[in-house]
Amino acid sequence: MTPELHNSRFMRAARREPVDTTPIWIMRQAGRYLPEYMQVRSKVTFLELCKRPDLAAEVTLTAREVLGVDAAILFADLLPILEPMGLDLEYAKGEGPIIHNPIRTASDVDRLREVENIEELGFVFEAVRLIRRDLPGDIPLLGFAGAPFTLASYVIEGGGSRHFIHTKTMMYNDISAWTSLMQRLTNSLVRYLREQIDAGCQAVQIFDSWAGCLTPADYRDYVLPHTRALIEGLPTNVPVIHFMTGNPALLSLQREAGGNVMGLDWRVDLAEGWKTVGDDVAVQGNLDPMVLYAGLETIRDRARDVLDAAAGRPGHIFNLGHGVTPDLNPDHVKALVEMVHEMGSGKTSR
Amino acid sequence: MTPELHNSRFMRAARREPVDTTPIWIMRQAGRYLPEYMQVRSKVTFLELCKRPDLAAEVTLTAREVLGVDAAILFADLLPILEPMGLDLEYAKGEGPIIHNPIRTASDVDRLREVENIEELGFVFEAVRLIRRDLPGDIPLLGFAGAPFTLASYVIEGGGSRHFIHTKTMMYNDISAWTSLMQRLTNSLVRYLREQIDAGCQAVQIFDSWAGCLTPADYRDYVLPHTRALIEGLPTNVPVIHFMTGNPALLSLQREAGGNVMGLDWRVDLAEGWKTVGDDVAVQGNLDPMVLYAGLETIRDRARDVLDAAAGRPGHIFNLGHGVTPDLNPDHVKALVEMVHEMGSGKTSR
Repeated sequence: MTPELHNSRFMRAARREPVDTTPIWIMRQAGRYLPEYMQVRSKVTFLELCKRPDLAAEVTLTAREVLGVDAAILFADLLPILEPMGLDLEYAKGEGPIIHNPIRTASDVDRLREVENIEELGFVFEAVRLIRRDLPGDIPLLGFAGAPFTLASYVIEGGGSRHFIHTKTMMYNDISAWTSLMQRLTNSLVRYLREQIDAGCQAVQIFDSWAGCLTPADYRDYVLPHTRALIEGLPTNVPVIHFMTGNPALLSLQREAGGNVMGLDWRVDLAEGWKTVGDDVAVQGNLDPMVLYAGLETIRDRARDVLDAAAGRPGHIFNLGHGVTPDLNPDHVKALVEMVHEMGSGKTSR
Repeated sequence: MTPELHNSRFMRAARREPVDTTPIWIMRQAGRYLPEYMQVRSKVTFLELCKRPDLAAEVTLTAREVLGVDAAILFADLLPILEPMGLDLEYAKGEGPIIHNPIRTASDVDRLREVENIEELGFVFEAVRLIRRDLPGDIPLLGFAGAPFTLASYVIEGGGSRHFIHTKTMMYNDISAWTSLMQRLTNSLVRYLREQIDAGCQAVQIFDSWAGCLTPADYRDYVLPHTRALIEGLPTNVPVIHFMTGNPALLSLQREAGGNVMGLDWRVDLAEGWKTVGDDVAVQGNLDPMVLYAGLETIRDRARDVLDAAAGRPGHIFNLGHGVTPDLNPDHVKALVEMVHEMGSGKTSR
């Protein structure tokens, strides 16, 4: 890593070092709310966009530049890693992802392959190389992947879910199939994220988007060991952001599972959340994305509340508590970035 | 209230008095998983069932008896109260409720009527009278209603929601319209619940099913005062179960809003949750309903975990952390009731 990248605002904050002002990036910053994204997206399907390194690079770089955020995040999706594992993935119009051959039984698990030849996902690493080549020298590039539980729930339910009936049924009724599935996913994820890092990512985020449906005891017994194995499988000099949503009662276990930066959703006050995960770790978050539907004055007030909760302590990366929604006004996102930079921790007055 | 009802297992637990064993009832116990319910339901639409006191009474009484639970809960729905307020409600097949004229603006709020003539909801109170007449003398009947926020979100979104965009937009951008809407709902809910109590309910539950989407600060500022006004508008000698789901970080505010029994979902460990809401209040919950898809041995283990978390302290009412799902095996629900009665707090050995 160049000294310029090493000393960038984002990387310093991830290491809990003082910064000139609070770094910010936005989950799903290259997304449908952005006209520049829609222009590219209108020419191809979502899955094609994920698999075209030139276009994935273009939307990644454009979003970073248009917003003026402190990190770029690879444009990709959580699920294409499942294709080389033998799953039949489709993004149906207006429906979200569908897996046509979901995993429900022990023998289903047996037919699931670990990703052995990582080059089957070469389009991702090529996008990383293209993005890194054209990014400013002080802007880190984030890679990412789904956490084992979140991927398992897609694989078992065959898509999104409300109650996670099949997932929990396998977890409770067939611990050996469950463990085997989680291990296959974890091993594949370790290879996938290592390769993203080798291709040029300076940090990675693990999205456990659905873990909030679990009791603390179930998270601890069925999920935590696998997330920990994933994080321990990654190089120790690359910061890992461990993001979870939907259940503040899991925060101390989220920390226990590992990561250098704890990604918080908006359900918890950031000061409380930071206290729970511990002062010896960085935090990322946690403005309610819906605040961006409010007027600029309210956005400023709420952004200040989040900054105040961080109290200027080193180790805060500003973000939303979840991804941007499609019909949001992009000017509000740009305004938020400016406000955070203006009011951020390095400045004397707010 | 008769001495028999006053001293029933459920009522004693709600007052945090010692009981012979832990009382249990099940949210949505009269629901689609039950063949006895489906037989009645097959003859009428859902809304018709809500509005036919004889049939509503029948499914309420049958579910109570078949399961052997310690309380009956009125068969009704959260939303019919909206019809006399001027909203056009439909339950579309397989889609959940739709409100064809949602409330989005201040002038929309102005046209919303409070429920003045409570007899427009007379079918509910008639069902209460029929159920109370035929219930065993030691089984209390619970009335219920949605909390103001949960009803507001249905009214504003026009149905169920994932992100609550319109709800939060009104909350942030038009506090006067928001407050007026919440007050109209709250005033109507006070009348509605008082009338249920007058007709023969021994306790009531307030469902704040969607409040978990809020930050603690937003819950405190925009919601808590209205839920408190609702609870303070009810007779003090009738226990109020205040149920909320989706965000354990709201627990202390849930308590602050009021209620004699705090209903917890499964996302939090019951012992932790009880500590947070305070020892001077009863708690209800909180088995993950998905556990009922597991085998009987697992169900027993998890039920025991919940009972152990309550540690035999007076004031625990056993329940699921959320409603029963439609395709569940009813024998598992019946088995759970027996297990809780067998292992419950009054017994010396588990």
